Amino acid sequence: MRIVVLAGGIGGARFLRGLKQAAPDADITVVGNTGDDIHLFGLKVCPDLDTVMYTLGGGINEEQGWGRTDESFHVKEELAAYGVGPEWFGLGDRDFATHIVRTQMLGAGYPLSAVTEALCARWQPGVRLLPMSDDRVETHVAVEADGERKVIHFQEYWVKLRASLDATAVVPVGAEQAKPAPGVLEAIATADVILFPPSNPVVSVGTILAVPGIREAIAEAGVPVVGLSPIVGDAPVRGMADKVLAAVGVESTAAAVAEHYGSGLLDGWLVDPVDEGAVARVEAAGIRCRAVPLMMTDLEATAAMAREALTLAEEVRG
Amino acid sequence: MRIVVLAGGIGGARFLRGLKQAAPDADITVVGNTGDDIHLFGLKVCPDLDTVMYTLGGGINEEQGWGRTDESFHVKEELAAYGVGPEWFGLGDRDFATHIVRTQMLGAGYPLSAVTEALCARWQPGVRLLPMSDDRVETHVAVEADGERKVIHFQEYWVKLRASLDATAVVPVGAEQAKPAPGVLEAIATADVILFPPSNPVVSVGTILAVPGIREAIAEAGVPVVGLSPIVGDAPVRGMADKVLAAVGVESTAAAVAEHYGSGLLDGWLVDPVDEGAVARVEAAGIRCRAVPLMMTDLEATAAMAREALTLAEEVRG
Repeated sequence: MRIVVLAGGIGGARFLRGLKQAAPDADITVVGNTGDDIHLFGLKVCPDLDTVMYTLGGGINEEQGWGRTDESFHVKEELAAYGVGPEWFGLGDRDFATHIVRTQMLGAGYPLSAVTEALCARWQPGVRLLPMSDDRVETHVAVEADGERKVIHFQEYWVKLRASLDATAVVPVGAEQAKPAPGVLEAIATADVILFPPSNPVVSVGTILAVPGIREAIAEAGVPVVGLSPIVGDAPVRGMADKVLAAVGVESTAAAVAEHYGSGLLDGWLVDPVDEGAVARVEAAGIRCRAVPLMMTDLEATAAMAREALTLAEEVRG
Repeated sequence: MRIVVLAGGIGGARFLRGLKQAAPDADITVVGNTGDDIHLFGLKVCPDLDTVMYTLGGGINEEQGWGRTDESFHVKEELAAYGVGPEWFGLGDRDFATHIVRTQMLGAGYPLSAVTEALCARWQPGVRLLPMSDDRVETHVAVEADGERKVIHFQEYWVKLRASLDATAVVPVGAEQAKPAPGVLEAIATADVILFPPSNPVVSVGTILAVPGIREAIAEAGVPVVGLSPIVGDAPVRGMADKVLAAVGVESTAAAVAEHYGSGLLDGWLVDPVDEGAVARVEAAGIRCRAVPLMMTDLEATAAMAREALTLAEEVRG
C-alpha cells in the first residue's frame, strides 16, 4: 500500500510514528511543510522537516517534541555573547550540525529535496521525506500591535510571540511561484491513500496545499483522502492552531476544519469522541466522518488512530 | 608608544600577552596572518586571528594553545555522523559560533577587517587586531607523495599530515593580488617599533610580508624592526617550522632565519642563549643581535622577552 501524508511538525511526526506501526509494510511518502523554514545566523533551518526526520529517526527530544535529544547549547550561548540573535529560537549544538550540513549543500547547488534525502540517509526515518517544494516559501503573519499592522515571519509569531497577538492574515509568501518538489506529484498520483495528520490546517497542511499543483493532484488522484482533526473539544490538541484559524476566518472546531478543507478535497474525517456532535455536520458537508479517540498519548494510541484512518479510507473506497 | 606586531597563531598570541604586560600603556596593532584561513563546512575559519583574539581575550584553551576553553564537540560529532568531513580539524561548539558569526557577516558584505573588529568588540583583546588583508589568501603546500607532486591546503599539511611529508614549496595563493587591509599600512607608517614575534617565519610572518606593500612599508617606516627567533637550538620552539623552512631553502637555525628576513627589513634579532654562537653571524649580516632567554614558559618569561625586544629596539634607534 502506498500512502502519502502531508505533514507539519510535531503533530505530523508523531502521527507518522503511529502510522509506521499501524502499517509496517506500507510505502509511505511524506510531503513536508517548508513554509516555516527560516534563515538564522546565515543557516537554513527547516523545523518541520527536521522534526519528522528526528522523530522517525530516533533523534528527537521526546519531551519537547522538537530538537535533538541529549542536546547542549554552547553555540547559542556564544552567539548571544557576540550579541548575535535571535535568542528566542532554541537551536542546540547537535541541531546546528544539521543546519550547517544543509546550508553547505544548498550553497553547493543541491536542491532542498536532495539535501533532505542526504540527511535522511543518516536518520533512516523509514519513510520517503520530500519537502513540499525546492523553492523558497515563507509563511508570514500579519498582526495588529498598538494599532499598527505588522507583517512578521511565522516563527517570530509562533515562537517569539507565542501567538499572543491576534493574526489578521497568514500568507505563504512565494507559494504562488513555487513548484512541487520532484517526486511530490508522482507520489500523489500513484498513492492508494492520502492522509492529513492532525497537523495545523493553516500553517502546515494549508501551506503545502498552497503550492500550485498539489491540491489539484490530491483532488484528482481518485483515491481516499482522509484527515484527522487537530481540534478536540474546540481547542487545538497542541499548539495554537486556533490563532491562525481565526486569521483565515475558520472557527476552531473539528467540523469547521473539515469544511475548510472541503468535500472537494477530503473524503473522510476523524473527530474525537468529545466532538461526536460534529459527525452529522461533517457528513452533511459530504465528508464521511467517524468519532474515534484522537489523543496521541502514546505510540499505541497513535497507531490506533492511524488504523482508524486507514479503515475509514477503505470504507470510503467502498 | 605605538607598536606594530606581525603575528601568526600560538607563538604570536602568547608573545602578545607578554608584550601587553611589558608595555601596558603601549598602543598595539596586530597584523594577523590569514593565509591559514580555511573554509570548513561552508564556514570561514581564521585560525590565527582567532588564536590571538581568544588568547588575549581570555577564551583560549591554555593547554593546547588554540581553540576555546570549556569546549564541547557535539557539532563535530554530528557532522561526522552525517559523514561530513573533514574530521581532522578540531572545531569545538563554542568555536563554531565564532565562525558562524563571521560567515554570516561576510555573507552580508562586511569585509574581514570589519568582522574581526566586531568579534573583538566582545573579546576586548586590548590590542587592535587587523587581518593582513581583506582579500582571500590561502597558503598551499607542495609535497611529494609516492613519487607524485601534490599541492594541498596548508591546514591539510599542518593539521592532517602533521607535516610528515617533505614540503617542496609553500605558496600564499592570492597574495600577489591582495591589498593590505584598511589600517595596516597606516599603522606601520606611524609605528614607533615593529616586532616580529617568534612566529613561523614562512607560513605566518612570511605570508603577511607576501602581501604587496607590507614589506615595503616596514622597510621604509624608518623605525626599529626587531624579531625574536622561533628557532632555539636548531629546532622550532613549537610547531614544525623546520619543515617549511626547508621548503624555502632556509636552514633551521636562529641565524639563518634572521638572514632570511634580511638586514633590509630587520634591525634587531633576539636569539636564545643556546644559540649564542649565532650572534656574530647575525651581526655580520648587519642585524643587531642579542642572546636572551626565549622560552615562553610563563607570562613572566614572555614579558621579559618582550622587554628585551623593546630594549633592543631602543638600542637600534640609537
